This record gives sequence, structure tokens and C-alpha cells, in this order.
Amino acid sequence: MNKPWWKNRRVFVTGGAGFLGSNLCHALAGMGARVTALDAMSEEGGANPRNLDGAGVMLVRGDLRDTELHSLAKGCEVLFNMAAQTSHMGGQKDPVSDIGINAVAQVRLIQAMREAAPEARVVHASTRQFYGRPVSLPVNELHPVNPPDANGVSKWAGEQYWLLESRVLGRPVVSLRLTNCYGPRLRIRDAKQTFLGIWIRRVLEAEPFEVWGGAQLRDLSYVDDVTAAFLTAAEQADAPGVNGQVFNLGGSPPISLHDLAERLIAANDGQGSFSTREFPADRAPIDIGSYHADDHAFRKATGWAPATSLDEGLRLSLAWYREHLTDYL
Amino acid sequence: MNKPWWKNRRVFVTGGAGFLGSNLCHALAGMGARVTALDAMSEEGGANPRNLDGAGVMLVRGDLRDTELHSLAKGCEVLFNMAAQTSHMGGQKDPVSDIGINAVAQVRLIQAMREAAPEARVVHASTRQFYGRPVSLPVNELHPVNPPDANGVSKWAGEQYWLLESRVLGRPVVSLRLTNCYGPRLRIRDAKQTFLGIWIRRVLEAEPFEVWGGAQLRDLSYVDDVTAAFLTAAEQADAPGVNGQVFNLGGSPPISLHDLAERLIAANDGQGSFSTREFPADRAPIDIGSYHADDHAFRKATGWAPATSLDEGLRLSLAWYREHLTDYL
Repeated sequence: MNKPWWKNRRVFVTGGAGFLGSNLCHALAGMGARVTALDAMSEEGGANPRNLDGAGVMLVRGDLRDTELHSLAKGCEVLFNMAAQTSHMGGQKDPVSDIGINAVAQVRLIQAMREAAPEARVVHASTRQFYGRPVSLPVNELHPVNPPDANGVSKWAGEQYWLLESRVLGRPVVSLRLTNCYGPRLRIRDAKQTFLGIWIRRVLEAEPFEVWGGAQLRDLSYVDDVTAAFLTAAEQADAPGVNGQVFNLGGSPPISLHDLAERLIAANDGQGSFSTREFPADRAPIDIGSYHADDHAFRKATGWAPATSLDEGLRLSLAWYREHLTDYL
Repeated sequence: MNKPWWKNRRVFVTGGAGFLGSNLCHALAGMGARVTALDAMSEEGGANPRNLDGAGVMLVRGDLRDTELHSLAKGCEVLFNMAAQTSHMGGQKDPVSDIGINAVAQVRLIQAMREAAPEARVVHASTRQFYGRPVSLPVNELHPVNPPDANGVSKWAGEQYWLLESRVLGRPVVSLRLTNCYGPRLRIRDAKQTFLGIWIRRVLEAEPFEVWGGAQLRDLSYVDDVTAAFLTAAEQADAPGVNGQVFNLGGSPPISLHDLAERLIAANDGQGSFSTREFPADRAPIDIGSYHADDHAFRKATGWAPATSLDEGLRLSLAWYREHLTDYL
């Protein structure tokens, strides 16, 4: 990261009150960037009104599907495009709304950006989701795309529209395909953002949590490392080998959900318990089994590397939520 | 093909007045199927009011985006899903409309089919388009997907939604990824459906035509072979190794556009001329270079093989248009 690069820089963050977006906003404001955040503040998503407390950024409440975007995008130098419908079950239940947010609204935003900020660089928050059930591990960027659900289709389409802005028009664009991310400002009220959210809540409430399956492998990204990846990608977005690329982002070494549950309890000074149940039958068709990312391409292209171990990240997360728990229930 | 299988079968064809859709309708009606065709009759697309002359099918004029689909889909046993926005330049100019037709309206149709025809099998007309500029030739189904334009993104998304109907719900679905198709009922007024359309028109009007580039390879599919492929796919859509699959469809051996131009003139008894010009600069970003399909997977899975040589197909096309030219200008 190049902190002085951000001083006074005008930055637009969609999904800015969400988990990843708000952490980015805090980091950007701390480096002196002038940040406009847009968020639909959907009850079903990752937004939380407290996520931007103390950040010192301008938050506009609005949905990408119908907000007047020109004035928000006008003159921005960097767009962090974090807004999305990310619920897999939500995408299956209401695929029209899902594609409306994740693809059609992206086309709207692209058109506004062409007019209002033609020079801005863009870092797009993408997902491992559309790789589907991996045919080999770890998963690199050449892995076939086999979306297991409607949400994977729409997220892939939205990403591809952004990549065309680089390929066809030459705008600096980078897309980061994320794995499970965790840390402060994650939605923990339920499992809608990630299973780890509800685990953290239960542990802090001294209640047992449920592990579905348990043998599946995941690599978790601590949010500060994700933030650093987005900032790094933006700084280098116009470099050959970065511009127009998609990169997988990984994190800690892969761990089974069962072992992760034990590490979470250990990070809570040994306090906590969990039970194991079978993966629910109604979700089995969209279960992807084990996943971990091969993120060598991004590390090599930009020099980024995750700096937070899993145990450290879990401790930091628990400590933060102990202080802020009531704001996130 | 299994002609008796089609007798009295209720078939729904979207895009039924278009080039491929109408040829399918003629074949289906000829085998005794009861066919409902839906078509938006867009001026910019492949539909032609004369395409269904004499076919004996019911044509409903309507757009997939807003037509009441339940009554049309009700009780159908086979859906041939041919409706699409296929213009690459159109997709770049109006990507919202493009994704509306090719993806959002597909989700609408899927929902209607779930309610009105849950048992029907589906053959979806897909495209080589989203493979983008091939990284190797011939192109098989594992080739990476790299859409060169917005139309490629939306067509891929629409296909994937249909494949999920097989993967998640078990509906028999087959997607055929087409290359350049030609033959009777192709739009020849201009180059909006394929470059070969306007070539045929010019040759029959004794005017020179233009070849853009010339060295690019293409494999052309004669429409009767494409029709046979769709019928075969439908008949076998519930078979293991066919259900839920995407298949590339090829045709005649690959030929350069320059050689194709000469073969077209030869098929016109040597009458005709063409000039060569560079690929226009404004279309260069979406030019895909050479393409030819590896369609072994479909041949092996179903026994289908193209039966019409390029020279024969060109002769048949010219003969048909000599009789029907004024209806297609």
C-alpha cells in the first residue's frame, strides 16, 4: 500500500455501509481520501448503520437500481464497487431481483461512470461463488466457471461487464474474486453473510453453534487483508498485468469447518461449544464442497500478501464484537 | 431423428418467426407436432412475417420481456428456446435492453415453465460468441469463456440459468452453442444476422459484396443440419450424458472468409464479385478472429452429424432466395 497516494483522492464506494465496503471507507478516510459511500441499507444484506460510525465519509442511502448515479460518480478517481446481492438462497428465490442488482444495475453504473468519471479506475468485488463445486484444488483463475445457483450467474455477468470496460475502452479495471471474509463489521445477526458470523455471535452469547457438514475446507480472509488487497489493486490498476485482470484472493491456509470451529473456541479462551449436523437437504444442490484459492497471480502481480493469521484474526474479531455486540444483533 | 416421436407432440418455440425458429417450426409441423410459436417480430432481428408461410403453426406476437407466458407454455412437452437479442453491436449500444432480453426475460420464462410445464424438456439456442477470441482451435466446450462484448455476457447468463434447471431441479435441458448458421429464411437484408446474409443478397442482385478481413476461419452450419441437431437434442434430452449438457455445434470444415466468398460465387454459377477491406476499426475490439468448433461431444452423445456440404448448402440457399428474394429485402 502507498498511503500518500490516497491523500485527497476522490473515491466512490458502492455498498459502502456493508462489511467490506465500510472497512474500506474507514481505511480510506484514515489516509485522507475524500469518500462518497452509497448503500441501499437493505435489511437482508451486510449493511449496518453503525458500520460507518466515526469514519468521516459521506453516506448516501440509495439502491444502484434506481439512484441517480451521475452526481455521485462525478469526478471520482477510484470506484470500489462492493454493492451486491450476495445471498445464494435469495438468488434462487428471487432471481429477477438478483440479476437486477448484480448485473443490470452494474450496466447502469457503468454507463454513469462512462459519462461522469471516464478516467476513474475500478476495483470490483467479485466472488469464488461462480466456480461452483471445484473440479480441482486449489482453484486458480483458469478454473471453469460453473455457477451452482442464480446468484453465481448474476455475479459473473456483473464482473464481465466491468472487464469489458477495460478490454474495449481501456479503463483500468481489476476484479477480485473473494473467498469467505471475516472480521469487524461482518453481519453476525444470522448466517446471511457467512456461517462464521452466526458462529461468532453464538460464542459471544455463550450459546452452542451448529456446524453444517464439517469436513469441507475453506480459506478465510481477514478483513484488513482484504482491504489492503483492494487498495493495492486500485493503486496498481493501470499497470500491465493488473489492468483488466481477475484475481482470486485467498487468505489463511485451508482448514476444515470442524477445525475452524475448534479454533474459534480456542480464540475465545476455550469458551464455547458446537454441534455438527448434516448439510441441509434443501441446500445440498448449491453446496460447493471444499474450496481454497490459489492466489499466487495476485501476490505476484502486486506484491500483496495476507498479514493476519487465522488465530489472530479470530481473536481480533471476537475482541471487536465483545465491544460492539449489541449494535450487531 | 425419430419422426414418429413428434406426432401430436405439443411444442413451444420462442423466436419462432426467426431464422432458426421458423425452420424448426416447418420441420415440426411437417412431422405432425402441434406448435405454438412466440416472436417479438423485432425489426432489428431475424424475424420475418413470411418465415412461417405455409407452416401451419400458431404464431403469437409478443416479447418475452412482457408477454403473459403461462398460457403459451401450458402443457408443452418441448420448449425450443430460440428467442434472443443476437446483435453484437446492439448489445454494446444498449446493454440494458440486451440483458433484459437475453437473461432477465429468460428468468421470467423459466419461472413460467416451472409452473406451466414442469415436465417439459428444453433445448436452448446458445452461441460460440462468449468464447471470445479463441485461445486454441478447434474450440471445445472446455474452452474458457471470455465474452468480447455485452451480448456475449447476456447470452452466457441466459444459458446458465437454463442449465441450473437441470442441475438443481432435474429438468431435461440441453444447450447448443451455435456457430454461423445459414440457409433459407436467414435475414439477408443487411449483415445484422450474419455477414453471409448480405453476401447472398448482393450476389443475387448482381452487386459486389464486401469481405471484411478475409483470412479469418469460420465453420458454417446449414440450417437443415441445425434443425436436425435441435430435434435430436430434444428427443434425447433426458438421456445421461445429454441432459444438462452444453454442446458446440459445428458444420462444414473451416474455411477462410476469402475462400468462402469464392465458393459462394462458384455456387452462383460463377456470377458475382467482391472486394476486400480491412476489419473496421470501430469493430476491432469485438472481432474474434478465427473460430471453428470441435463438436465431437455432441456427435458422440447423440449420433448427430451434419449432412449438407458447404457447396450444396450454398446452392440450396441461393436457389431458395432466387424464388423468395423480394420477401427478404
